[in-house]
Amino acid sequence: MKLLTYLTSNNEQRAAFVHNNKAVDLEDFGDLTNFPLPDNLLELIDMGIEVIAEINALLEDVSEPDLNEISYELNEIQITAPIPKPRKNIIGIGLNYTEHVAESARTLDTTGKLPQKPIIFSKPPTTVTGPNTNVLLNANLTQQLDWEVELAVVIGKKGKYVAKENALDYVFGYTIINDISARDCRREGQWIVSKGQDTFAPMGPFLITKDEIENPHNLNLSLKLNGVEKQNSNTQFMLFNINDLIEDLSIVFTLEPGDIIATGTPAGVGAGRNPQEWMKDGDVMECYVEGIGTLINTVKEIRI
Amino acid sequence: MKLLTYLTSNNEQRAAFVHNNKAVDLEDFGDLTNFPLPDNLLELIDMGIEVIAEINALLEDVSEPDLNEISYELNEIQITAPIPKPRKNIIGIGLNYTEHVAESARTLDTTGKLPQKPIIFSKPPTTVTGPNTNVLLNANLTQQLDWEVELAVVIGKKGKYVAKENALDYVFGYTIINDISARDCRREGQWIVSKGQDTFAPMGPFLITKDEIENPHNLNLSLKLNGVEKQNSNTQFMLFNINDLIEDLSIVFTLEPGDIIATGTPAGVGAGRNPQEWMKDGDVMECYVEGIGTLINTVKEIRI
Repeated sequence: MKLLTYLTSNNEQRAAFVHNNKAVDLEDFGDLTNFPLPDNLLELIDMGIEVIAEINALLEDVSEPDLNEISYELNEIQITAPIPKPRKNIIGIGLNYTEHVAESARTLDTTGKLPQKPIIFSKPPTTVTGPNTNVLLNANLTQQLDWEVELAVVIGKKGKYVAKENALDYVFGYTIINDISARDCRREGQWIVSKGQDTFAPMGPFLITKDEIENPHNLNLSLKLNGVEKQNSNTQFMLFNINDLIEDLSIVFTLEPGDIIATGTPAGVGAGRNPQEWMKDGDVMECYVEGIGTLINTVKEIRI
Repeated sequence: MKLLTYLTSNNEQRAAFVHNNKAVDLEDFGDLTNFPLPDNLLELIDMGIEVIAEINALLEDVSEPDLNEISYELNEIQITAPIPKPRKNIIGIGLNYTEHVAESARTLDTTGKLPQKPIIFSKPPTTVTGPNTNVLLNANLTQQLDWEVELAVVIGKKGKYVAKENALDYVFGYTIINDISARDCRREGQWIVSKGQDTFAPMGPFLITKDEIENPHNLNLSLKLNGVEKQNSNTQFMLFNINDLIEDLSIVFTLEPGDIIATGTPAGVGAGRNPQEWMKDGDVMECYVEGIGTLINTVKEIRI
C-alpha cells in the first residue's frame, strides 16, 4: 500500500492511502467502514502491519461512489512528509556504500577504512520537511551544502536483540530521505550540526508498505541536481544491508514503531567531486528510489 | 516548584509537585481546583512556565484535608525520570568544562583544543531511566563504562535564533542527567553508540522550575562512585554557559518545549584517570547537583 500525509486547506496534516490513483483519506475511510483508523501514519504504524491487509479487505466491500466522496486527485493535494514529526531523531547510517567511503576519505575527515560496524548518527525531528519544499541554506553557517539520496526504512514494531534473519519482520515500509549535509559544520568530528539543521531531511513522497517492495536490496536509487544526474546506484551495494542494520541497531537501542533509519548514500555527493560542488540558492534536487517515487526539493538561501 | 513523575502500583506514570514535603498528584490537583492539569510533565511544559504561578495561587485556596487526599509521602512512591519519554533525542554537549577537555585529550581521541563552538551529540529517548534503577552494562559491547554528572536544562517554549541575552526566557527548569558513556563504542568518531545505549541517561529525581534556581551558573555538582567522590565542580566553570548554548543550538535547530540539553560534565570521569577506571556490575553512582537533589543508580552487567 502506498501511504501519504497531506495538508488540508487549513494546513492540517491528514493521512491517506492511494487507491486507483487517488488519495483516500484514512480516517474518513475508517468512519465509512466502521473500522476506526487514525488521521496520521504514526498511529497507523502502531496498529501493526496487519492493518494493511484489513484495509485491503475492507476496500473490496466499499462502493465506488462512497469512496469518491473521501478521495482526492493526487495532483490536487499538497503531499507532505509521510511522518512529519518523528518521535525521536532519525537514525542515520554513514559510509554504507563502498565508493562513498572512498570519496569521503579523499575530501572529508573520515578514515577511508571500510567500517567494521555501521556508522550511526542522528537527525532531529525538526530536520523533516516534505516534498516540494525548500531546504534552507543558512549562509552564515555553511558554504558547503551537499545532497545525499537514501532509502529510508520505517520500523513497524518494538525490537531488541533482533536476529538478522528475522529483521525484516520489524519493518513497516520504506520511503526516501535526502540526507542534506553541511560539510563545514562538523564539530570535534561530530556530524549532528552538519546533518541536523532545520529542513535537512526532506522525506517522501510516499511511505510504501513492505509488501509492495519485492526486494529492498535491489532498488535503483539516483539523484539529479538541476536535471543533471549526480548519484546513481542500487541498494544491493549497501555494505550493511537492512537486516544487518536492524540487528546491529537493536543491540544498541530498543527499536520502536515509527523509528526511521536512513540507510546511507551511494557515491556522487558534492564533497566527493573534483572540484567539489556545493549547492546554492535555487538549486533543485530530485531524489529517486525505485518503487517509491521521486522527492523534489529546492535550495533556498537565508542569512540570519 | 519541585516537579516529579512517579509510578503508581499499576506501573502507570503520573506527574506530581512537591508541597510541604509531599507529592501532590498533578491531574488530581487540577480536578480538585477546576483547573485542568495533565498527568505528565511534557504537557505541563506545553502550558507555559506561567502555569507554575497559577498552581501556586490555587494552592492558597485549597484546604489541607482536601490536599492530603491527593498527596503521597515522598518515601512511599517510586519516583521515575521527570520526562520518561522525551519527544526527541536528548541534546548532549561535549567537552564543556576546561579540565574535562584536557583529560579527554589525554586518553580519548579528542583534540584537546578548547572548542570554539559547542560540541553537540544526541542520546535517544530510549536512554532515559529513572532514579534508583539499573544502568545496563552490556559486556558484549563495552569494557569501558564511564560516568558523567551533568546539569540538564529543560526548554519551555519554541525558540529559533534566540539571542543569548534572552535565552533563559526559553528555560522551563532544570534536572540532573548522568551521561553514561561506553568509551570503546565510538564508531568513525561518532559518539551516539557510546552514549546512546538503553538506560544510558539516568534522569531526575526532580525537575526544578527555573524560579527556584537563583543562578544556574553557580551550582555545585559532584559524583560519587561507591561512596568515593570522583567529580566535584561548579556550573560556573562551563565553557559555554546556558545562555551561550541556547543561542548556538537555536541557530542550528528549532528548540521546542520539552527539549532537554545535558550541558556537559566536569573533570573526573573514569577515562581521564591514571590508571583509567571503568565501572562494573554492582557499582553505585550518586550524582548531585545543588538545588536539584541526588540521582542514584546501580550498574548491572548483562551479556546478550
